Amino acid sequence: MITRMSSLFLRTLREDPADAEVPSHKLLVRAGYVRRVGPGGYSWLPLGLRVLRRIEQVVREEMDAIGGQEIQFPALLPREPYEATGRWTEYGDSLFRIKDRKGGDYLLGPTHEELFALTVKGEYSSYKDFPVVLYQVQTKYRDEARPRAGILRGREFLMKDSYSFDLSDEGLAASYQLHREAYQRIFDRLGLSYVIVSAMSGAMGGSASEEFLADAPTGEDTFVRSTESDYAANVEAVVTPAPPALSIADKPESQVHHTPDTPTIETLVTFLNGAGLGREFTAADTLKNVLVKVRAPGAKSWELLAIAVPGDREVDPKRLEAALYPSDVALLEEADFTANPFLVKGYIGPKALQDNGIRYLVDPRVVTGTAWVTGADKVDHHVVDLVCGRDFTPDGTIDVADVREGDPSPDGRGTLVAARGIEIGHIFQLGRKFANVFGLDALGADSKPIRITMGSYGIGVSRLVAVIAEQSHDEQGLVWPRAVSPADVHVVIAGKDDAVREGGERLAAQLDEAGLSVLLDDRTSTPGVKFADAELIGVPTIVVVGRGLAKGVVEVKDRASGERVEVPVDDAVAHLTDLVRG
Amino acid sequence: MITRMSSLFLRTLREDPADAEVPSHKLLVRAGYVRRVGPGGYSWLPLGLRVLRRIEQVVREEMDAIGGQEIQFPALLPREPYEATGRWTEYGDSLFRIKDRKGGDYLLGPTHEELFALTVKGEYSSYKDFPVVLYQVQTKYRDEARPRAGILRGREFLMKDSYSFDLSDEGLAASYQLHREAYQRIFDRLGLSYVIVSAMSGAMGGSASEEFLADAPTGEDTFVRSTESDYAANVEAVVTPAPPALSIADKPESQVHHTPDTPTIETLVTFLNGAGLGREFTAADTLKNVLVKVRAPGAKSWELLAIAVPGDREVDPKRLEAALYPSDVALLEEADFTANPFLVKGYIGPKALQDNGIRYLVDPRVVTGTAWVTGADKVDHHVVDLVCGRDFTPDGTIDVADVREGDPSPDGRGTLVAARGIEIGHIFQLGRKFANVFGLDALGADSKPIRITMGSYGIGVSRLVAVIAEQSHDEQGLVWPRAVSPADVHVVIAGKDDAVREGGERLAAQLDEAGLSVLLDDRTSTPGVKFADAELIGVPTIVVVGRGLAKGVVEVKDRASGERVEVPVDDAVAHLTDLVRG
Repeated sequence: MITRMSSLFLRTLREDPADAEVPSHKLLVRAGYVRRVGPGGYSWLPLGLRVLRRIEQVVREEMDAIGGQEIQFPALLPREPYEATGRWTEYGDSLFRIKDRKGGDYLLGPTHEELFALTVKGEYSSYKDFPVVLYQVQTKYRDEARPRAGILRGREFLMKDSYSFDLSDEGLAASYQLHREAYQRIFDRLGLSYVIVSAMSGAMGGSASEEFLADAPTGEDTFVRSTESDYAANVEAVVTPAPPALSIADKPESQVHHTPDTPTIETLVTFLNGAGLGREFTAADTLKNVLVKVRAPGAKSWELLAIAVPGDREVDPKRLEAALYPSDVALLEEADFTANPFLVKGYIGPKALQDNGIRYLVDPRVVTGTAWVTGADKVDHHVVDLVCGRDFTPDGTIDVADVREGDPSPDGRGTLVAARGIEIGHIFQLGRKFANVFGLDALGADSKPIRITMGSYGIGVSRLVAVIAEQSHDEQGLVWPRAVSPADVHVVIAGKDDAVREGGERLAAQLDEAGLSVLLDDRTSTPGVKFADAELIGVPTIVVVGRGLAKGVVEVKDRASGERVEVPVDDAVAHLTDLVRG
Repeated sequence: MITRMSSLFLRTLREDPADAEVPSHKLLVRAGYVRRVGPGGYSWLPLGLRVLRRIEQVVREEMDAIGGQEIQFPALLPREPYEATGRWTEYGDSLFRIKDRKGGDYLLGPTHEELFALTVKGEYSSYKDFPVVLYQVQTKYRDEARPRAGILRGREFLMKDSYSFDLSDEGLAASYQLHREAYQRIFDRLGLSYVIVSAMSGAMGGSASEEFLADAPTGEDTFVRSTESDYAANVEAVVTPAPPALSIADKPESQVHHTPDTPTIETLVTFLNGAGLGREFTAADTLKNVLVKVRAPGAKSWELLAIAVPGDREVDPKRLEAALYPSDVALLEEADFTANPFLVKGYIGPKALQDNGIRYLVDPRVVTGTAWVTGADKVDHHVVDLVCGRDFTPDGTIDVADVREGDPSPDGRGTLVAARGIEIGHIFQLGRKFANVFGLDALGADSKPIRITMGSYGIGVSRLVAVIAEQSHDEQGLVWPRAVSPADVHVVIAGKDDAVREGGERLAAQLDEAGLSVLLDDRTSTPGVKFADAELIGVPTIVVVGRGLAKGVVEVKDRASGERVEVPVDDAVAHLTDLVRG
């Protein structure tokens, strides 16, 4: 195929768009791949649509290779299935809701678990039908609070979402693993640099779950990785290793001290170190008791929950929310303190909590035999050497303290460092949540029903166009990997005389004949304009047909390296075919 | 590609779905091509999606062949451009409107003229850039009052919409003609039987306009065609030929008669024929004056309009609406008669209308010299021999009387008969309506702006799946044309012994090797079930591998004709490849 720039619907821009911050957004607009239509809404111009379609194709091939069957749902969906799973409400403002002319409630699908579960229930009934993997490549909608970065985070986007349906946990694990490997092949074929991080599944309510994050300093997603291993995880998913329990026998008795004006950890540590206790204290020796209130799904009232973390750490709200999901969690209000006078602000200790029946969960570092300085439930008083397992017995652990660079990696190798990325894929084992709601069963060989277990797997297809651009560009413009480039070769006719023009046309025709797709710059613009556009557009191989033609050569430039070689015009087709075919 | 029915996500149904009335709806559901998800919303199961994609491909190829460039817009669109053209309101209840989390107004695009016009304005500026044809294959939304017939009239559907942008009327006419021919090629390739009918463009406000209607007795669109020529038109587009003017000189004087109790045409004709006037009257000799009120776009008040049609005809509301577009039109209420006491119900005549300044438009048959019996503006009185051009002078003509079978064809050849069809394509010359709203100009060679003129062209891609099914099925099921069939060959393994099974598998593998797509029925079901499913699914060629294998033959059945031939198994690949490749 030959695409002529003289008639291509494309105008490149010399200036970055005013609203663009990240390189992919700037370059995709400047090079004429996308155009903004509204907040979080973009149109695909011809070159952009080609890149998108090529990515789709890679995704389809790998999904088909693991036995995925493509189907397609509407985007406009009735409320009822989402009401049944609670997601009609859970999605909050992120869901686009619509009323039809009869007042019926509809939504624009953000993800389709409900519909796939119902469809499988509608078609399949026997254990012999399973497992099955279904997928779609479909437009999704989310009313993002802050659509940004062009097509990286839009409100309408193209996703591949697939769903596995299995009879057993082992089956689900196998379907999950198949997807994990397919995703690796997809992202590898697209030339992406990425990490797989352990993830919480958040609002999805799943268990085993991993995210594929493309390396990108501009990424919105933060995660931690080990300095010495390939461990990587969302902050919400980091599991703090518990140290071994210590002996209780050798610990001194706990003692209450008068510690005037020490409502904060800092003032407390300063006081302790000036109190002549014969040892040095740090914030890590203190135990901070944080009160929150929790409401289980469907429950009407809130319950108090006390969380103990070492005084040198804070409770991380995202980790807290993930740990308590699907319950709601909120900070205490003044009225809560008034209603519970045993809560002495700044001096809360385990004793009053446990005496008053408050659930008390501690950081994993608070193991039996550890001794702590903590509140004595009385203004200006703390207790020293309060020993876990002797002086207080927590109701369990909760892993919600903040994660920091330098913390030991949970796999025991190296320490954690922070990193940023862009989510490009997400795989998780949903389990039986949706099957339970809809009664999705298969009849077993013994005629007893088997509850189906589901996996859910997503790839942000349109986002990938931006992610690839984000990882593959330079000062001059985009640099597409061959697998997704809008053309195989960009032929620039650099000169106005007939011989050059005819030479360029002939070469383009020959390349087309050889099965390559050619972007042919046959415009009347100056060579300078054409070269700049070729760099900006980013086809990996640029062929300049110009003055060299008189000597029988064309120039072949590698867009990525900048390397140029002169190739005899008679060898050009073979040379380029080799390059493109690898 | 081999698709195994043992694992294909497909369950055929023996019963018609309860809500299905037309054959395509019944069969597409029964054969497992689509499933209902909500009112007017359907999911595509694997076989259905394949047919849809194949149709898309034909459409793309022919659009590309006329130089169309594919782009893609979001479905979720901001209100402003549609507000600018008035369509935000004009679409009424058919438009899905949405508020985002910030209260901003959005819509789900029913068609994209505004966005395409704005995009061309954004990219192009010189006369050298034109003409250009852009298209998309994109999901559209309309809140149909009565979604029906499965995917024939859904609320979410796939459309190819294209738009041409030209510098001149001649250019537009050429772009229109290119599309007309491309559409003919598309529908011919899809094996459809269709007619091209003259159409009004309705809410689009265009001028030259034609619809492609697939022949279908179940079709929602009615039209008329000539018994003797290829004239065909929407009822709204039928132009009544005006008869030649008659001489006034030989007409008797008009006379007012007392015609007691004759408020209807029927009672009037009976009375006249019993009144001894010396001639026979029919309803066609009377002139019925119908009052409506009309409101121009943007106007606050309604104006009365009187329409005269021969008494044997009614005013056709659809023709009336089309003739008066873009004004609103309504019937008179009691209050209107009270406010205009000169309107004597049942006895309204041209005199009072014209004396009171009411605009008076007449049917094209009411030419100079025709004599009529009509109201005398007085209860129980009519006037006979009121001659047009002598006794009254209309303000113009209006062609809104109902069109009937037997009316002369406007092209002078034959008479009209009614027919039904399903709209599959629509092409029209929009003209400068949208360009005027958005100031879409090109700078001419003389540096003066040239206002761009647009064409708009649509094909209902998802609807075509149903239309093809509607035209191509029998009692047993679907009968796909080769160009869109979900597979090239349906191989049925009819028998359980190993030789048969291996023979079927081997043949499928060989056909796959030869580049054919194979639907392989490798299920454990009985041959009877498999044969019934093969008929229902409708792949054009069915190969039965069964008992004949022992004799070295397989049976090749033509789904459409039912014809069966035995083919030596060694020749089967060559035989089938020839069949499929044509």
